[in-house]
Amino acid sequence: MKSYRKELWFNTSKRVEFINITREVEQAVFESGVKEGLCLVNAMHITASVFINDDEPGLHQDYKEWLESLAPHKPLSRYKHNLTGEDNGDAHLKRQVMGREVVVAITEGRLDFGPWEQIFYGEFDGQRPKRVLIKIIGE
Amino acid sequence: MKSYRKELWFNTSKRVEFINITREVEQAVFESGVKEGLCLVNAMHITASVFINDDEPGLHQDYKEWLESLAPHKPLSRYKHNLTGEDNGDAHLKRQVMGREVVVAITEGRLDFGPWEQIFYGEFDGQRPKRVLIKIIGE
Amino acid sequence: MKSYRKELWFNTSKRVEFINITREVEQAVFESGVKEGLCLVNAMHITASVFINDDEPGLHQDYKEWLESLAPHKPLSRYKHNLTGEDNGDAHLKRQVMGREVVVAITEGRLDFGPWEQIFYGEFDGQRPKRVLIKIIGE
Repeated sequence: MKSYRKELWFNTSKRVEFINITREVEQAVFESGVKEGLCLVNAMHITASVFINDDEPGLHQDYKEWLESLAPHKPLSRYKHNLTGEDNGDAHLKRQVMGREVVVAITEGRLDFGPWEQIFYGEFDGQRPKRVLIKIIGE
Repeated sequence: MKSYRKELWFNTSKRVEFINITREVEQAVFESGVKEGLCLVNAMHITASVFINDDEPGLHQDYKEWLESLAPHKPLSRYKHNLTGEDNGDAHLKRQVMGREVVVAITEGRLDFGPWEQIFYGEFDGQRPKRVLIKIIGE
Repeated sequence: MKSYRKELWFNTSKRVEFINITREVEQAVFESGVKEGLCLVNAMHITASVFINDDEPGLHQDYKEWLESLAPHKPLSRYKHNLTGEDNGDAHLKRQVMGREVVVAITEGRLDFGPWEQIFYGEFDGQRPKRVLIKIIGE
């Protein structure tokens, strides 16, 4: 069994931002040499997500507005978590809706994807350095 | 290490529909010959889910009504994604709540499940051919 | 390839409760002898979650209030599932938001975590014996 590990770093210019990381994950699969296996991609921070969906700007705007309606950023006093001095209570909730991680099959050395699947880093409390972990196992 | 891959195809008669695929996944585990390992089951389309819950019709109706209240299908103008000519903006949101994938342990050649766990394909934009991927690794 | 399986049992004193299980999962990784691999941790019951987030009491209170607003426990008549004699319709919905499972990378014999990641058992219909499954594969 082979295993491979890689980190991706991000420092977004906005508080909430989605970044397509499909090519970086494909590159990691290539580097791993794994032909058949599983690829885990997870946010290493608890106010960010990794998710799979469409690379369509209108949809991304829909996600941002919808998540803001489900868990508004303000008023900050809405969240007990913000009593710790943080202002990211909402980000911890948004991340649960969008998910921490994805697991993707690797088949014949490639991400085994449907026609529109793309992997995104979802940042909900950005403007600071944060990481994604890629872990690949297989043969 | 063994690996095994199988696709399931669906073409639902309704726009929103849940289908129990537990037996099909168990069959794939049997075909794989894997006794100890992991089984990934994921929607290959971005307006569908794979999730694990109870096979109880009342609960499924509850899920459908709840998801409709969180992300209504209409008015279509509610979603910027629908400006692309699609009418499935809501389906992309519903799928995030229910999830893209499940990972299930395989122990002694069987899905290692609690008493009520069943695997479902969750369709939110149906009436067209769509796929689920099963990927099994182990020994 | 090695594999390892362990169950954790819970019987919470409250209906809704979050329990930090990070040490128990780390212990299982140690027992497995796996140095490089994947660790699946999933609720074996369909009204409970396993999720990764911060071990901060204010945040946990925020989660509980937010989930209650998204899927209120009462009135029980709100959920068709409760017509079966159950009173846990809400718990099946809450569990979908928080998720059934997490998959964590194992690197150099340890859970490969970011700075604040902790694993929680999320109970939404407690006061009865329930289980979490840990399944580890790797080398």
